[in-house]
Amino acid sequence: VVKVNSTIEGVKGFQVAGVHCGLKKDGALDFALIVSDVPCVAAGVFTTNQVKAAPVLVDMERIQQNPANMRAVVVNSKCANACTGEQGITNARETARLVAEQIGCGAGDVLVMSTGVIGTQLPMDKIKHGVEVAGDSLGADWSLAARAIMTTDTRPKMASVTVTTPDGQYTVAGIAKGAGMIAPNMATLLSAVVTDAALSPDAAQTALKQAVSVSFNRVVVDGDMSTNDTLLLLANGASGVQADAVQFQDALTAVCTELAQLIVRDGEGVTKFITLTVQGAPSDEAAHQIANAIATSPLVKTAFFGNDANWGRIVAAAGRAGIALQPEAMKLWITPGEAVGRTGEALLLFDNGMPTAYQESQAMAIFKEPSVSILLDCGIGSGSATVWTCDLSHDYVSINGDYRS
Amino acid sequence: VVKVNSTIEGVKGFQVAGVHCGLKKDGALDFALIVSDVPCVAAGVFTTNQVKAAPVLVDMERIQQNPANMRAVVVNSKCANACTGEQGITNARETARLVAEQIGCGAGDVLVMSTGVIGTQLPMDKIKHGVEVAGDSLGADWSLAARAIMTTDTRPKMASVTVTTPDGQYTVAGIAKGAGMIAPNMATLLSAVVTDAALSPDAAQTALKQAVSVSFNRVVVDGDMSTNDTLLLLANGASGVQADAVQFQDALTAVCTELAQLIVRDGEGVTKFITLTVQGAPSDEAAHQIANAIATSPLVKTAFFGNDANWGRIVAAAGRAGIALQPEAMKLWITPGEAVGRTGEALLLFDNGMPTAYQESQAMAIFKEPSVSILLDCGIGSGSATVWTCDLSHDYVSINGDYRS
Repeated sequence: VVKVNSTIEGVKGFQVAGVHCGLKKDGALDFALIVSDVPCVAAGVFTTNQVKAAPVLVDMERIQQNPANMRAVVVNSKCANACTGEQGITNARETARLVAEQIGCGAGDVLVMSTGVIGTQLPMDKIKHGVEVAGDSLGADWSLAARAIMTTDTRPKMASVTVTTPDGQYTVAGIAKGAGMIAPNMATLLSAVVTDAALSPDAAQTALKQAVSVSFNRVVVDGDMSTNDTLLLLANGASGVQADAVQFQDALTAVCTELAQLIVRDGEGVTKFITLTVQGAPSDEAAHQIANAIATSPLVKTAFFGNDANWGRIVAAAGRAGIALQPEAMKLWITPGEAVGRTGEALLLFDNGMPTAYQESQAMAIFKEPSVSILLDCGIGSGSATVWTCDLSHDYVSINGDYRS
Repeated sequence: VVKVNSTIEGVKGFQVAGVHCGLKKDGALDFALIVSDVPCVAAGVFTTNQVKAAPVLVDMERIQQNPANMRAVVVNSKCANACTGEQGITNARETARLVAEQIGCGAGDVLVMSTGVIGTQLPMDKIKHGVEVAGDSLGADWSLAARAIMTTDTRPKMASVTVTTPDGQYTVAGIAKGAGMIAPNMATLLSAVVTDAALSPDAAQTALKQAVSVSFNRVVVDGDMSTNDTLLLLANGASGVQADAVQFQDALTAVCTELAQLIVRDGEGVTKFITLTVQGAPSDEAAHQIANAIATSPLVKTAFFGNDANWGRIVAAAGRAGIALQPEAMKLWITPGEAVGRTGEALLLFDNGMPTAYQESQAMAIFKEPSVSILLDCGIGSGSATVWTCDLSHDYVSINGDYRS
């Protein structure tokens, strides 16, 4: 088991800043910069939405063309630079160029992330100011950067792992923002993960894709998928340690899983953290499809909010996932806490096509916990998948009914 | 254009009742009976959920085996008789048998529908009482039956059409209940449509499937799909008119469309009725898929609730529908009211990959209307589809957070 820290003590050769450039009101941090002293190998995973924001298009191109010479990541919140046409692309590139000028590197050696409202152009005077202020305040306080990328997040999200090898130690550390629009395929999501281990571009991309498939692609807040979803990995080798593929994968997956779970825990209006495992499905993919159908069901999510152990809605949501099921073969357990799978405390609610003779008071007591684990065994195969999800509350409606006002 | 009435004045050879049998509190109507004086041709369309309620399983079998000799439909609310095992099947059959005994027909000549909470057995003493009381109070007041099948519906739903032919007139009339769980594929939904025209079993089934594809399958409240969705058609021929296929289809589609729209208008917590048309898609199926992605998006639906003309969320939802799109080719208009497609009043919000220079106050004024029409032109083909949907409000969360308590 990898030990994950909730803070970042520093990653060799990286400096960060989180400042106010004027996008958010009341002086709140809205602009982050991560800079490596030396060129980095970079990898990225991006939204599969057909409508991609300008920074996504710019970064996709840069990571493909220039994966071994990256120096910085610049992030603004409050404006997504999505649906902004050619001007948006120009502004994303100009943001990177301003950073390059500030830190002294090639204009193509900087990656850009934006999050916030769709359809407005970046105010470049504020961005220019942000580059200057951030460039002058680079240091080791990752929490400022984590705070600067927040939108409706209520708290900054950080995770780090220290890896010990025969050649010395290295660190894998990441920051993320999430909140709403956390979809089955990639959360809405900006996340930058850095390491001072040395990696090849291919190893970095392979490890990042693998980590995403079991972390960010396993969290569901509302089933939407953003125009801006971006996860970047930068490896600068400053620790002097060449990463072992297996050991690095474990560390990267642990950091990404922690960040993904933090995003669910801090999802818009979330009051309950659900660990949902589907097993006994025809395949792992089928299990994931069933889990996503359950996790995105508004009826299931409002029942979670109401502390209602409404197995009927869970079973009904599974039944419309597009996978052939046998209701008589299904079993459904609930357990307090965050265990994956069945524990001794598990309460069987549904078996043989019918509810069991469980006590409603016992089920309600479990569902009143802030964390609940649900296990659905389809009883017809050996495929399994776990997703992390949450409830749908009044606050979700308030936050998203008013977001632009 | 077919004229649809919001009441049912009577359909030759049919009698109805809506009574209180003891399932709902405070004496509210909870039990409905529709009886034909003579045997009917019957057709049905049912939920595609893998978890099907007992009455669905019973009706599917009966309509397949006995499509020309049906005499009655019996409906209870408050208990769905779903996830009730063999006992549930036995109870559904016994309900039908009690009706058969009451009205004097074969035990297999009665169809059964149930709606309400999943996982509890029908209290057969109350059902028996309901059969007796309803049998004794058969008459022409369809509004009582429409009221008795309601769950979280706030008002009864009825529609009828009178068809004039060279051979005389006939009527097509239906009642429905809806509220939540109104999915892209078949609403949650109980609906019984009757006609005094004469139809063959094949003609009835074909017409019903066609009507569903452009009515109940085009409405989205929350994207869930129920264990109990059932739409039945009974034709008793008592008007003496043999239905012309085209004319009957028009009338049946009009009745089903009206009922489907009534379900959206009275969806759980609904404050806004949205007519959403996608055109210029690669195919009609692709257009429907894009429309469903938009109509089920919680971010889009909460923006509707907030009177927010948030074209960004609409475009982003379209972008994740699984259809290849070109953002630069897309155009999005909004119009007050319920027009399908573009009208002279339409306001263009999005064009050429970017928002237009529309006035936010103008867009907000349209979105404050109780009915808004949205047109998305994908600009890459000739496929189109229209769905009717609604917002996601605080009341939806309240209703579904507490449904069982």
